[in-house]
Amino acid sequence: MNEPRRMFTFTSHLSHSDISQVSLRTDPATETPILHATAEARAKGYDAVCFPLTNDIWKMRWRDLCLLPPGDIQDKEALERRAETWRSKPAFMRDEVTITRIDEAEGVVVMMSDWLELDAPDDWVRHDSEIALQQELAYASYLNVHTAILPPPRHRAHLASYARTVNTCINAIPYIQLSIRIPIYNPMELQFQSTTTDLSTADTSSSLLSSTEPSTATWEMWDTIRSVCGYNPRLTLTLDMTPPMPSVLTVLGQWSAEPVRHIFLPASTFIANAKGYPVLPKGAQSFIRDILKLQPNVILSGTSTGRHERGGEAAYSQYVRHLEKTSPLVQAAQTSGTVENFAQGYQDYLQAPLQPLMDNLQSVTYNTFEQDPVKYKQYEQAIFSALSDWRSREKIVICVAGAGRGPLVARCVAALKRARRDAYIYAIEKNPNAYVTLQERRQREWGDKVQLVFGDMRSVEVPPVDILVSELLGSFGDNELSPECLDGAMRFLKADGISIPASYTAHIAPLSSSKLFHETRVGHEEKATETPYVVMFQAINILSGNGGGISGKCGPQVQECWEFEHPRRDVVLDERGLPFTNSHNIRSAQLTFHIPHAGVLHGLAGYFEAILYRNIGLSIHPDRMHHVSKDMLSWFPIFFPFKEPLYLPTNSELHVSIWRLTNERQVWYEWYAEAFLPMPGTSSAPRYSPMSDRLDSESTPILSPSPLVDAVDIPVIVEEADEVKSTAGATGGSGSSVDLIKIGQTSLHNPRGRSSWIGL
Amino acid sequence: MNEPRRMFTFTSHLSHSDISQVSLRTDPATETPILHATAEARAKGYDAVCFPLTNDIWKMRWRDLCLLPPGDIQDKEALERRAETWRSKPAFMRDEVTITRIDEAEGVVVMMSDWLELDAPDDWVRHDSEIALQQELAYASYLNVHTAILPPPRHRAHLASYARTVNTCINAIPYIQLSIRIPIYNPMELQFQSTTTDLSTADTSSSLLSSTEPSTATWEMWDTIRSVCGYNPRLTLTLDMTPPMPSVLTVLGQWSAEPVRHIFLPASTFIANAKGYPVLPKGAQSFIRDILKLQPNVILSGTSTGRHERGGEAAYSQYVRHLEKTSPLVQAAQTSGTVENFAQGYQDYLQAPLQPLMDNLQSVTYNTFEQDPVKYKQYEQAIFSALSDWRSREKIVICVAGAGRGPLVARCVAALKRARRDAYIYAIEKNPNAYVTLQERRQREWGDKVQLVFGDMRSVEVPPVDILVSELLGSFGDNELSPECLDGAMRFLKADGISIPASYTAHIAPLSSSKLFHETRVGHEEKATETPYVVMFQAINILSGNGGGISGKCGPQVQECWEFEHPRRDVVLDERGLPFTNSHNIRSAQLTFHIPHAGVLHGLAGYFEAILYRNIGLSIHPDRMHHVSKDMLSWFPIFFPFKEPLYLPTNSELHVSIWRLTNERQVWYEWYAEAFLPMPGTSSAPRYSPMSDRLDSESTPILSPSPLVDAVDIPVIVEEADEVKSTAGATGGSGSSVDLIKIGQTSLHNPRGRSSWIGL
Repeated sequence: MNEPRRMFTFTSHLSHSDISQVSLRTDPATETPILHATAEARAKGYDAVCFPLTNDIWKMRWRDLCLLPPGDIQDKEALERRAETWRSKPAFMRDEVTITRIDEAEGVVVMMSDWLELDAPDDWVRHDSEIALQQELAYASYLNVHTAILPPPRHRAHLASYARTVNTCINAIPYIQLSIRIPIYNPMELQFQSTTTDLSTADTSSSLLSSTEPSTATWEMWDTIRSVCGYNPRLTLTLDMTPPMPSVLTVLGQWSAEPVRHIFLPASTFIANAKGYPVLPKGAQSFIRDILKLQPNVILSGTSTGRHERGGEAAYSQYVRHLEKTSPLVQAAQTSGTVENFAQGYQDYLQAPLQPLMDNLQSVTYNTFEQDPVKYKQYEQAIFSALSDWRSREKIVICVAGAGRGPLVARCVAALKRARRDAYIYAIEKNPNAYVTLQERRQREWGDKVQLVFGDMRSVEVPPVDILVSELLGSFGDNELSPECLDGAMRFLKADGISIPASYTAHIAPLSSSKLFHETRVGHEEKATETPYVVMFQAINILSGNGGGISGKCGPQVQECWEFEHPRRDVVLDERGLPFTNSHNIRSAQLTFHIPHAGVLHGLAGYFEAILYRNIGLSIHPDRMHHVSKDMLSWFPIFFPFKEPLYLPTNSELHVSIWRLTNERQVWYEWYAEAFLPMPGTSSAPRYSPMSDRLDSESTPILSPSPLVDAVDIPVIVEEADEVKSTAGATGGSGSSVDLIKIGQTSLHNPRGRSSWIGL
Repeated sequence: MNEPRRMFTFTSHLSHSDISQVSLRTDPATETPILHATAEARAKGYDAVCFPLTNDIWKMRWRDLCLLPPGDIQDKEALERRAETWRSKPAFMRDEVTITRIDEAEGVVVMMSDWLELDAPDDWVRHDSEIALQQELAYASYLNVHTAILPPPRHRAHLASYARTVNTCINAIPYIQLSIRIPIYNPMELQFQSTTTDLSTADTSSSLLSSTEPSTATWEMWDTIRSVCGYNPRLTLTLDMTPPMPSVLTVLGQWSAEPVRHIFLPASTFIANAKGYPVLPKGAQSFIRDILKLQPNVILSGTSTGRHERGGEAAYSQYVRHLEKTSPLVQAAQTSGTVENFAQGYQDYLQAPLQPLMDNLQSVTYNTFEQDPVKYKQYEQAIFSALSDWRSREKIVICVAGAGRGPLVARCVAALKRARRDAYIYAIEKNPNAYVTLQERRQREWGDKVQLVFGDMRSVEVPPVDILVSELLGSFGDNELSPECLDGAMRFLKADGISIPASYTAHIAPLSSSKLFHETRVGHEEKATETPYVVMFQAINILSGNGGGISGKCGPQVQECWEFEHPRRDVVLDERGLPFTNSHNIRSAQLTFHIPHAGVLHGLAGYFEAILYRNIGLSIHPDRMHHVSKDMLSWFPIFFPFKEPLYLPTNSELHVSIWRLTNERQVWYEWYAEAFLPMPGTSSAPRYSPMSDRLDSESTPILSPSPLVDAVDIPVIVEEADEVKSTAGATGGSGSSVDLIKIGQTSLHNPRGRSSWIGL
């Protein structure tokens, strides 16, 4: 059992009055208040302290300098001259800052003056706030402070100025991390959404806000800031959980995809439980349990004020630590055999997909995959079922196409034993190195009942086969060229033969992840975004929702792109039994996703599901994997990145096109997306009903429940087929009263020249 | 007088039956029908011919190969085998193509088979159409054909597949230009917009289409295709003017910004005038007159069918040539002294703005600008008016700050003479080379009344001055550092002195231009988009409209960013009389534009307007230039490019932020834009009323009519101030019933490190 990493660190927040109180306890001859407070916090188990860099003396001086008193004043020019002198050479006096020594700054998180208004409506306040921020950051940088938290934006109309200033600062000052403090919810909106009535100022002009729609307004401000800053990796997020907060936090997934480095959690967010100990309300609990996967630093504030009767100061961090230990993610990670446990250290790490047809795998790679406890059990069960169904009493011929180091051969042997059947087993392998292992195992384990065949399954000679077993699937099903390889093996499968797997499908969902977006852009070659990656998702958010959206025509959260079935009877073959062209393995899908909450599209998450035999399958589809093949470890999902982020508003629709393409030597995917906003009724051109002729196309299957999970009660929303089918007609015609207005698109991702599989 | 270039070329379109008829007149021993037809067309004055590359024999073979007959058929496998054979090695038979010799292909425009459905709903039809298109293009390329016209997209739901195929072809086949045939209007929509009733199939499901809103649906298809193709410069547009067309073509500006290389204009688009000659309806006339600036090739079709009584075949091209000759643009270009005449050859050519403070200009540059007939007349008139107003009878002191080669000095001398006043004239110049010319002119022309001062106006010694004259303005007003230079000269202007210019303003409008977008991306350094350019706009479209938009809060088409006034009395000065910092020359603007028709934002067009003295000014503001300073040649507009295109739907709002920023050594601009869609009433979060606190800011002036054109009746829409002022509150609050939904944003353009002016 692995010991999981601690997910949270804890930081103690010191207010100005906290620092003053510490001063009283500090012997100025031997230490400073900050050093004393840091030592105290460490002794209490905190990892660090966080406090404001400046004090009220600085605030007063800035105000005197920059805000002219109202009315006519005599010495206006003298005041202006003083301000200009400061602007030309901004500097602190010793008594204006909380830290004056480099040893005080070690490991601390400092807050920039919270009265700075980088987005003030007044030009001069904005300008002088920017100078003051640069002054504060330059001083923090001088002290080697690693993280500076900036005050939140306050005026949406001047958010661009706030963002521009942050961009200027982050580029002007090296090394330091800037963290933007953002409230989880905008309290202004909360007034009309929460049922509490203790809020003071009701703004009647906001009465149009629908009380059922959770808002993404503060996330949208963060998105603007980080976009203006070009996703600078030194820009992070400090989520502020200061109350008021709604009792139900429904739109929290959006933060999972962001660089949340700090959670600001004041004691006032805690409520008292029956015994008087501080606990968090339900919504905040589940948020904390979810966000821990980002391993943020929790800044606890006001914990020494005795706000709660019981537990004292330590109770707050102990409670959060309790939430951590009891979170499903941490518990899964601690449990041997789970994907979460297996995947530790691989989260959000981009790997190039295997190309086993082009490359010969190493033994260590086979070793990793052979450890999967579930996959081979499923295979054995499928082979056993097929053998049980096999009516002929003649000796069966089984062929393992792509035997590798032999795990499927061993499972065939085991299944035959269980089924009390006898068979010839042929094991084909093209990797000369693995072929040595196969010979070794035949000699030691299997004996004469296994016949080894060295070569490519598309060209070797094998007698007619009853059951063809293969494990050629990739994270996206067909992406390791299973269809093309099995096309080459079908020539020796008898007319009534069985292929295991019998079929497989590819599935996608739109995804947001600032981390993955950043990873695909830096540290890789220029065209790194032009290729899919295998990745264990963690700091991501799936943007799509279930349900039909406003137009009623959207599919579910994760949608099927296409299917491959084996054996394929409709392909015309040449005299060698091989297809003339690879045209029959071309696929395309046009899918429509409903985006219930605003987000930024960074890529597509891809999954596969395979039917091995009858109702025995393999699945990494997020809704079905636990039902079909729980705890299977062999496949992480695939990630199709987009070069440029695409902003998707609340209730928009995303139309994704994805193609599997081929020429004589290569197979590759291309992908593309367009965003639309549905406008009920009265909208204006351009408009069209893009899904209207979708049903005409064989290649775009409407969601049908998986045959693997038919009997299982999981939430799959099936479209109302009647309504969909009632729409018809081409460009310009629409059967519903919802018009779609195009609002954006991605580039076409066309990695043919780069990273396609040379296989045929 | 310059002879204007011919704007149009003409191409004769040959249908299959035209080619058959030519065959009858052709002697097969000496020539081919195509060569004969080409010779005939040239003899009739056409520049080229255009015809289909393939014929019906190929069409029949493709259909037999690729479309299986319905029902059970016996030899299905043989048919499939034949298709697969073709797919594996696509090739023409000699009798399937119209050209078989390279000399036939010289200078011709060929049309790809118009029955190819690259966007068919059926996967196989799409796939086989793509193979056929690649076959046709490969053959055209083999023949060295330069332009291939592709059939139009037909199914919006599969447009992405059409676009992907075009992208594949254009990358696979070098040199050849692919031109997408796009109807100006979608006839399906036209049915509900035009008043004609002769259209056959009325689609009742489209009855929601508003009849007053012109559609941009076909433009939107083009935009998708070229975006998917990454603005490939070999991808062009063939605008199809085949009827039906609406009688009024209101949304045509959008095509001005696109690479329209061909206009397909059939004889059926022409109507007969009273005498029976073919003429175009009004809407088509104005469209042709407007689009000629793109110098397209007009493909005339069906001109030999005798559709119109009079004029014969030649009447069609003669009529179009007549429209060309009588177009305002061609006439202006032929008239000496107009901007259009002066600017020939400079259209859409990107120039780096001058940096006269950093660089010393060459004599030839001065020479160009001194030729402006209007600018110096305005200056002389302003100086004359100022002299006339000057009450003191003492000898006046005039200073020309930045005298260059002396044009303003000469105008001062002339104005003094006209006003019958006497003055000391000081002429300051820092360019040592121009200073030689000044000495020459003083010796020869001006004598002792002009005193020359060599040096930077910010440091030279000059006695107190009554009237300070300068010409330091750039295309964006302050972009050549006029504010900073005049700050340095104000110390010797008397307290009641006059500055000419008295003030200047900067203006912007959102712009679309695929040509300028492409120019900023290629042939320049990597960060070429991070700098503004001076450019004479031609193939562009201003995206904004007048009027308040759906929210009622948008400004006019072109909006003022900020103003500088001289002399500036509120700046605090040091003992040398210079400002302590440049903070007072910082500016910012947040402007909201209404986008009445869908378009793609590629940049901002920038203009300036200056008040020299009282009502005498200089203006390149497109609505006012003709009233303020008609035929002034010295300034082309400025262009602020965006790195990535931003799609703007019909009726969206664009919020532009632009800043003029400064440090101790540099002045630069940063710019950024966000797109919103106004949703009446019922929309959902995120939302805000972004203009609500705009009025609090001094820096964002609401449109006020220019003092220079107050008396002139030009269309300037002034916002209804009452309505705007009634909205108040910060984020989340909205006083109107329109919510804005954010739909996209640009990058922040931040050229500080690159191309700012080092001047201070």
